[in-house]
Amino acid sequence: MKKINVQLKHHQYPIVIGSNLLSDKQLWSDLINERQVVVVTNDIVAQHYLSTLLSGLAPKEPLVITLADGEAVKNLHTIEDVVTKLIQAGIDRQAVILALGGGVIGDTAGFVAATYMRGIDYIQVPTTLLAQCDAAIGGKTGVNHQLAKNMIGAFHQPIAVVSDCNTLATLSERHYVAGLAEVAKYGLIQDANFFAWLEQNITDLRQRNISALRYAVTKCSQVKAGIVMQDEYDQGVRNLLNFGHTFAHAIEKAFQYRNILHGEAVSIGMILSSQLSLHVNPFELSQIKRIKQFLKSLNLPITLPININSSELLQYMKRDKKKIADNLRMILLKDIGHAYIYDNVDKLTLTDVIQACYE
Amino acid sequence: MKKINVQLKHHQYPIVIGSNLLSDKQLWSDLINERQVVVVTNDIVAQHYLSTLLSGLAPKEPLVITLADGEAVKNLHTIEDVVTKLIQAGIDRQAVILALGGGVIGDTAGFVAATYMRGIDYIQVPTTLLAQCDAAIGGKTGVNHQLAKNMIGAFHQPIAVVSDCNTLATLSERHYVAGLAEVAKYGLIQDANFFAWLEQNITDLRQRNISALRYAVTKCSQVKAGIVMQDEYDQGVRNLLNFGHTFAHAIEKAFQYRNILHGEAVSIGMILSSQLSLHVNPFELSQIKRIKQFLKSLNLPITLPININSSELLQYMKRDKKKIADNLRMILLKDIGHAYIYDNVDKLTLTDVIQACYE
Repeated sequence: MKKINVQLKHHQYPIVIGSNLLSDKQLWSDLINERQVVVVTNDIVAQHYLSTLLSGLAPKEPLVITLADGEAVKNLHTIEDVVTKLIQAGIDRQAVILALGGGVIGDTAGFVAATYMRGIDYIQVPTTLLAQCDAAIGGKTGVNHQLAKNMIGAFHQPIAVVSDCNTLATLSERHYVAGLAEVAKYGLIQDANFFAWLEQNITDLRQRNISALRYAVTKCSQVKAGIVMQDEYDQGVRNLLNFGHTFAHAIEKAFQYRNILHGEAVSIGMILSSQLSLHVNPFELSQIKRIKQFLKSLNLPITLPININSSELLQYMKRDKKKIADNLRMILLKDIGHAYIYDNVDKLTLTDVIQACYE
Repeated sequence: MKKINVQLKHHQYPIVIGSNLLSDKQLWSDLINERQVVVVTNDIVAQHYLSTLLSGLAPKEPLVITLADGEAVKNLHTIEDVVTKLIQAGIDRQAVILALGGGVIGDTAGFVAATYMRGIDYIQVPTTLLAQCDAAIGGKTGVNHQLAKNMIGAFHQPIAVVSDCNTLATLSERHYVAGLAEVAKYGLIQDANFFAWLEQNITDLRQRNISALRYAVTKCSQVKAGIVMQDEYDQGVRNLLNFGHTFAHAIEKAFQYRNILHGEAVSIGMILSSQLSLHVNPFELSQIKRIKQFLKSLNLPITLPININSSELLQYMKRDKKKIADNLRMILLKDIGHAYIYDNVDKLTLTDVIQACYE
């Protein structure tokens, strides 16, 4: 069991990474004590891991709220429905919510915790690679608005993150690989050695070798925690984590959040951002080739599907939260392992880059 | 113009109290600078004060979002609708929302500010006595759930509170007097001299004498700010501000938030809490008489309407946010000017007190 401490200005919490954590009675008893517990999960995750988690929580019998699988539940109507169940069950301010699932469950249950009675405690229990490496850490919670993703939310730090790497075994190949796109992001923005390690260990990673997984999850958690500790409210350096994401959010929106996974959109977005980096500042073409090669060898998409309209994409990008007045804030690469913030992208360059990235 | 500084652990902001503040160009320019501005108000307040505020903001032309008057708009659907308008108008993270109105507008617009893009700045511009003295100060924002009031919300401090006492002139007699119930609360919980001042100046207050109003608003703002500074997140001493409110929220719920004003429910709730104080600890009957006398002379209700069922009332009280496990947290009086927290109210005593307070 590995522990990483997230030390923020006003609170701190542990990220616990290991195997067989869901059923670890001692761990849960230490984290929760005598408090009421609510588990929020989805129907797919529940099939695989709910009984294991309940065995770890026993003899407590938590209120279990099971949502449908998928991004479609991540909206204000779900928040209202979950709150209805909390009120009906008499859940009070001292209760703890456990978010058992991927990014959608973490964001949604986290936003319930952020707003129920003006805020109660919650623990992230991520069961996807993407959530363990990224979404579950740092306290970003929220839901989508029909016009744009993650538009309604709050910064609300969990009291712990429990990443059980065993849960990655049952992830579909597609979801698993999509998570590796987000893992690669950490190498690309901040750690060239880690990216090289990923390239070298791609076979082990594809086979979900448990020690390779633990190393990757621990490495990503350390980088993410380090960045969040410097910039909890995403005013500066934390923006770097958005590498590929301004494109990705617009791509997901163009797909109406169907038929594309977040990690897949991030894969395309990172290539677009790398191409944009070429236009703006010196950046080696050979490095883009390495990035493309890595993502391609994972069967991740690296081109824009032709059914996405470029002007539609630009329009969605303009709704990005990082936008300042009329300027998009883009994260670009100087080198592999070295990202920077760039606020002066002109629409013409952006259009050029998008046009050149169709399949 | 009077300024009170609210100095919290991590931020501070001014409460500005005075006359003709809405049209004060210098004040608005100092507070807002070059940022995008959104005014959220309701149709009644807009008729009286929107053009005055717009003259103060000119040459800026803010996005104006006008909600219907009344508590019914304080829900998640309104949040979604307002966010739709913000996205469509291209409002970014640097924007400032001005909440022009009473408590409903302040709570609702404040919750939009708390959650739009995970939080943007806002300024409370309260136009009712209740909001100027209480609701606008301290960063509590949120909306009602169909099962209970203020169930979904966030602590999100404004960057300023601007209380223009001129706006109290057009308040209906009923709304104005309801606000005086909340004013009386400050005297009752913490300041016997202020309660005595209120008793002595009741004629001036009823006539809305502007210097009496400024004194009362300033006094209440100072007391409220002082309490919030000690306990921003309502874990301890801030609970005292809830005097009368556990009853009041249940009474409002029993009325389905129609045909009763918050201040009227607080008036009844303070009498119920005073009666409960008699049962629990020594508390002079003569003091209850003074409180009743004061509220009655304002034509505020001091008894429970017979159409409210006592078991229904108890059931609603059990959903109170201050509840800890199965115990209701009540605020009781030792003396006028001296409130305390009491967690061990038994249901039988509560039922007795309720039964004895019917009209």
